[in-house]
Amino acid sequence: MVVLLGGSGYVGQAFQQLFREQGVPFRNVARKEVDYTEVAALADLLASTKADFVVNAAGYTGKPNVDACELHKAACVFGNAVLPGRIREACERTGTAWGHVSSGCIYTGERPGGGGFREDDAPNFSFRTNHCSFYSGTKALGEEVLTGAADCYVWRLRIPFNEIDSPRNYLTKVMRYASLLEASNSLSQLDEFVRACFETWRQRLPAGTYNVTNPGHVTTREVVDLIKKSGVCDKDFQFFKDEEEFMAKAAKTPRSNCLLDTSKLQNAGIAMTEVHEAVETALRKWRAE
Amino acid sequence: MVVLLGGSGYVGQAFQQLFREQGVPFRNVARKEVDYTEVAALADLLASTKADFVVNAAGYTGKPNVDACELHKAACVFGNAVLPGRIREACERTGTAWGHVSSGCIYTGERPGGGGFREDDAPNFSFRTNHCSFYSGTKALGEEVLTGAADCYVWRLRIPFNEIDSPRNYLTKVMRYASLLEASNSLSQLDEFVRACFETWRQRLPAGTYNVTNPGHVTTREVVDLIKKSGVCDKDFQFFKDEEEFMAKAAKTPRSNCLLDTSKLQNAGIAMTEVHEAVETALRKWRAE
Repeated sequence: MVVLLGGSGYVGQAFQQLFREQGVPFRNVARKEVDYTEVAALADLLASTKADFVVNAAGYTGKPNVDACELHKAACVFGNAVLPGRIREACERTGTAWGHVSSGCIYTGERPGGGGFREDDAPNFSFRTNHCSFYSGTKALGEEVLTGAADCYVWRLRIPFNEIDSPRNYLTKVMRYASLLEASNSLSQLDEFVRACFETWRQRLPAGTYNVTNPGHVTTREVVDLIKKSGVCDKDFQFFKDEEEFMAKAAKTPRSNCLLDTSKLQNAGIAMTEVHEAVETALRKWRAE
Repeated sequence: MVVLLGGSGYVGQAFQQLFREQGVPFRNVARKEVDYTEVAALADLLASTKADFVVNAAGYTGKPNVDACELHKAACVFGNAVLPGRIREACERTGTAWGHVSSGCIYTGERPGGGGFREDDAPNFSFRTNHCSFYSGTKALGEEVLTGAADCYVWRLRIPFNEIDSPRNYLTKVMRYASLLEASNSLSQLDEFVRACFETWRQRLPAGTYNVTNPGHVTTREVVDLIKKSGVCDKDFQFFKDEEEFMAKAAKTPRSNCLLDTSKLQNAGIAMTEVHEAVETALRKWRAE
């Protein structure tokens, strides 16, 4: 029995679909039903449902984008830094293994020396480096709160997408934004992400942090070229001149653009599609929500 | 009518005593009575009690000292960074003025160029500077969460003491610790602190941040000399050789030792006793809890 927290969100819904497809017994817990932000209530639930595993897909992301986190700081700190710590406490109290959806947005750029950031690299887009969005700061703080947690998987997601048009889908965003920022990024195909996350526990890999992104990285222009080639959208895509113009005209807080190293997951035998191929496939199957 | 949150704590009890002495109608709200960490519950309470002012003396300090915060990170983040934001929301929703007990421990050392840190100096002992205790990090984050809050006083306390022997009293700590760290600090005489805090609102000073410490600063050796001179304790006080030895032998996380500039409060006409005199007076009146 898997207990799913945050099952109504973009990532949570994908976990629900995965569990249904795989025939995994799960319980999607709504906060109004059981206030899982309270340690005692969650621990009771885990005991009464005899949960083997907990997936935390709950968190505060800001709508329509991370700029909103700058205006709702207490909610953002609570959802991303306090809640993981409370789930940890409930899981440790009941001896339950669990996984937490974290984010690669605690990094910016490439690893010094080139390539993607590894799981044990210190975040460089966080409160600690005093260069981050408030959102990224709280996600990094959440990982700090989970340091040393027992039987805890920390899964780092980056810019989710799949073939279903949605305001949360990166490909939809690229097609809808008036102007784009050119940058290199790791991405996570959403359905591959949730499958890979769940595999880390199903295969009983050592608990700890995993970068769960599609191997390789893409630039925004490459994504635009794939969109045009697919025929899904043929608009005249506009780009900001540089990050300075982007910040002045479109954003309230800096964005993380970064590469993650995926060798830990790959070496453990959990494969995800190369990122250009994953984007191409999503666009080929593109459909309305 | 003043609503007091955290009234059972060391600072909260001093607020209770002040209100009793001054005949200020107040309601000390216990969490088990009204869960004031929930915005809606607190807003309802403020409306139903027709509160004119809220004092937030609740927070997570760690027992017996800040080292405990390194082990209870989620609770520490919640009490010091999330709760102030929720109180802000409830107070803004109901149009209620309020004051928050913050801490000078978001600074270390002296202001660049000498003297004490002023209210608008950026914290230098915080997550943002990546040099802090977890406790200080969360207190600084709490001030960040309150940026731009309406009708909000942020009162910075430093190392409280008075004449009553107590594990939370700085003078008791100095007398009980096996070894001491020599450092310069601003201090807050507890009863003067709560009086000065309340005066900022009673006199309708502009809302904002106030350093509420006794003017001047003391070194640990000066405090020891005053203790010896008072006759309260004549033990052979031991000192660590330096901060390195202190960190190696006695502490899990670095301590803030800092000077605060008190001219904003003084210029507003709210006086506190010079710090050496305040320490001397407390020792002269020293009594058991």
